[in-house]
Amino acid sequence: MNDSLTQDELADAWPVLDTAERLQAVGLLSRPDAEDLFLTVSTRDQAELVLAMEPAERRMWLRLLAPDDAADLLQEAPLAERAAMLALLDPATRREVTGLLAYAEDQAGGLMNPHYARLRPDMSVAEATAYLHRFARAHRDTTYYAYVLDAEQRVLGTASFRELFAADPARPITDVMRPDPVTVREDLDQEEVSKIFAAHHFLALPVVDDAGRMKGVVTIDDVVDVVREEATEDIQKIGGTEALDAPYLAVGFASMVRKRAGWLSALFLGEMLTATAMGRYEDEIARAVVLALFVPLIISSGGNSGSQATTLVIRAMALGEVGLRDWWRVIRRELASGLVLGSILAAIGLVRILVWQGMFHAYGAHYGLIAATVSLSLIGVVTFGTLAGSMLPFVLRRLGLDPASASAPFVATLVDVTGLVIYFSVASVVLRGTLL
Amino acid sequence: MNDSLTQDELADAWPVLDTAERLQAVGLLSRPDAEDLFLTVSTRDQAELVLAMEPAERRMWLRLLAPDDAADLLQEAPLAERAAMLALLDPATRREVTGLLAYAEDQAGGLMNPHYARLRPDMSVAEATAYLHRFARAHRDTTYYAYVLDAEQRVLGTASFRELFAADPARPITDVMRPDPVTVREDLDQEEVSKIFAAHHFLALPVVDDAGRMKGVVTIDDVVDVVREEATEDIQKIGGTEALDAPYLAVGFASMVRKRAGWLSALFLGEMLTATAMGRYEDEIARAVVLALFVPLIISSGGNSGSQATTLVIRAMALGEVGLRDWWRVIRRELASGLVLGSILAAIGLVRILVWQGMFHAYGAHYGLIAATVSLSLIGVVTFGTLAGSMLPFVLRRLGLDPASASAPFVATLVDVTGLVIYFSVASVVLRGTLL
Repeated sequence: MNDSLTQDELADAWPVLDTAERLQAVGLLSRPDAEDLFLTVSTRDQAELVLAMEPAERRMWLRLLAPDDAADLLQEAPLAERAAMLALLDPATRREVTGLLAYAEDQAGGLMNPHYARLRPDMSVAEATAYLHRFARAHRDTTYYAYVLDAEQRVLGTASFRELFAADPARPITDVMRPDPVTVREDLDQEEVSKIFAAHHFLALPVVDDAGRMKGVVTIDDVVDVVREEATEDIQKIGGTEALDAPYLAVGFASMVRKRAGWLSALFLGEMLTATAMGRYEDEIARAVVLALFVPLIISSGGNSGSQATTLVIRAMALGEVGLRDWWRVIRRELASGLVLGSILAAIGLVRILVWQGMFHAYGAHYGLIAATVSLSLIGVVTFGTLAGSMLPFVLRRLGLDPASASAPFVATLVDVTGLVIYFSVASVVLRGTLL
Repeated sequence: MNDSLTQDELADAWPVLDTAERLQAVGLLSRPDAEDLFLTVSTRDQAELVLAMEPAERRMWLRLLAPDDAADLLQEAPLAERAAMLALLDPATRREVTGLLAYAEDQAGGLMNPHYARLRPDMSVAEATAYLHRFARAHRDTTYYAYVLDAEQRVLGTASFRELFAADPARPITDVMRPDPVTVREDLDQEEVSKIFAAHHFLALPVVDDAGRMKGVVTIDDVVDVVREEATEDIQKIGGTEALDAPYLAVGFASMVRKRAGWLSALFLGEMLTATAMGRYEDEIARAVVLALFVPLIISSGGNSGSQATTLVIRAMALGEVGLRDWWRVIRRELASGLVLGSILAAIGLVRILVWQGMFHAYGAHYGLIAATVSLSLIGVVTFGTLAGSMLPFVLRRLGLDPASASAPFVATLVDVTGLVIYFSVASVVLRGTLL
């Protein structure tokens, strides 16, 4: 690493450096470059850098951060370090950060920046512009809008810096502002906040308390992170793990095993019902061992179709495309899909058994009845899998749980047990008097 | 619906209205409110509205859109309508939109807006500000930065509207701008673009061609949509479906079945190997039917652990937390995880068999050997499932395919076949001379 390191070179190399190398490299940059870089890296990286510094050095870096970012950084730090780090902030910021830490991390209040540019309704555009000149110089954090507040701190309207830029300076601000802006409640879940941003293409939204008083601003750059985090949580849950809440390689081994063992054990206990179900059909299997050959094929087809249906419905719910009220539309659509998909697999299965029989005489004299059993079971199991997979997210949501917990393995387990019952029930009807 | 409908009321009701109702409701708003609303709804909704209008009406609405948004809208429209809609644009915009349509939708060039505020390096802040006043009035689309370009259209630096606001008007723009900005190449994949935004918390990035000439600007509001779309595609693939590329309820039935039947049939064909594998062990099953009882339990445990591993690795790759170079770290970690998780399930399985034997004498005289077979198989199958699930995304990525295609059902199918071989091999060793 040489002395003429630039901010860009370091930003490029950043992901492959460890914390000690990063700290050393930041020390080689000019002060303004180092500060710029520090402000652009992720909260996790900021926290690791600050925690790796001598306590005497930490103050200056912490004070660069806007209150919402400082609060985020503190939430990354071990609990034991937090009080000492809070003490490094100036008293005004400390009060704001303490206030922000009281919000849950996943609420609008936990995302917002309590600093924003406020204007009075009796200002002219020229007065507002003069005030914003001073405000912009005093605050490093990016602001896109100024907010016109009444005496009770309620939001009358918003004006973007850009709009003020373009407006006639002599006009009153109330002429230029956009009245009745969309606001979000401080306790709104961050996923809902991100949906409002997606629906309206705003850069920032004012956060208000239950009396409508403005508390701060949520900006779109925080929302990008929220969208990514929420998708990560959903994907991990769909895969049958608890959400990791940290990068894969950063999670400790014990914690990683814990987050996987819980669901895996629960699914295993559920799957034990298959051994019980198989036990009930032990006599049938003993009489017609050929039945056992198709067990994995049939139950996995139900699991696969259920996995498809549940992930489609979970994602559609997360995007707000499907709500609880749509359950009837979904059930009709998935019933039809299940029947069609099951019939396709049944046809493939039928051909497979007939071809194998023709080539190897693999299934004995009653191969036709076996083919019928397998095909009919496939239609039943795939239809059941599709319905179960699509309805389970609705049931979980209705119970106030996260629909994403209807993971692919969860649905597969549910369908495996039922699939066995369907298969052996069909077999007992079709094969009665011949094999059984 | 009454005549005093406000833009906010309509925005709230928007998701539950159909296209005809939306068109009617927009007609009830004042012109500026209707335009505001039109600009905030999704591209899909804009396209549906415009397509539902009389051709004579379409021109005005299309001309409200920035070129990148107009290009997006055209991409939502049926091919047959595109030429007619292009013809409604003014000649300059039409040229720009035609240029944008040449980019793939998922490249930086397909996301960018070709309009941006350009400054010359010899301007003062005051001159730049005066120019931007005029620019801001002429362009509706939000801009956050102005770009200082040299005579060859290469980007020398960026200055945010906010920074110009705060700067001394007499200083040269080159003193105020941030030099050597991060740029993205016009052919960069949108997922990579979104990672650069995530790493740096920018509001906008300049897009350049391979000679470094500036072509346009990608803004963060487009990136939010990209992050959401990419996560949706990954989730759908992880669930074992092709990406739907449209909202769940908006996809036609035939198209929905097609996108699911392909993978489902492929998985079914793969899963047929289980019937072949089971066929090879038909004699063992006939001699010891008790072995068949645990088949679903054992193979599904492999599938579940594989599903966990594959989704964790797919997501870590999509977030850039894990790259190809990390395969060795991942394999060591997953080998250890698999052994621990397998041992946990083996312990639970052992207890289950001993308890059932104690209560129901369910497994005959050799229950101890059966318990050993099941437990050892679980360790082997879960370890194999975890390794296969974690390595398959690496293999797909190495082959230039999408790691998200290593779906939970795909991994489960792979593991089912191997799981049977592991189980019956363990059984043939442990039970030789007793049951087998």
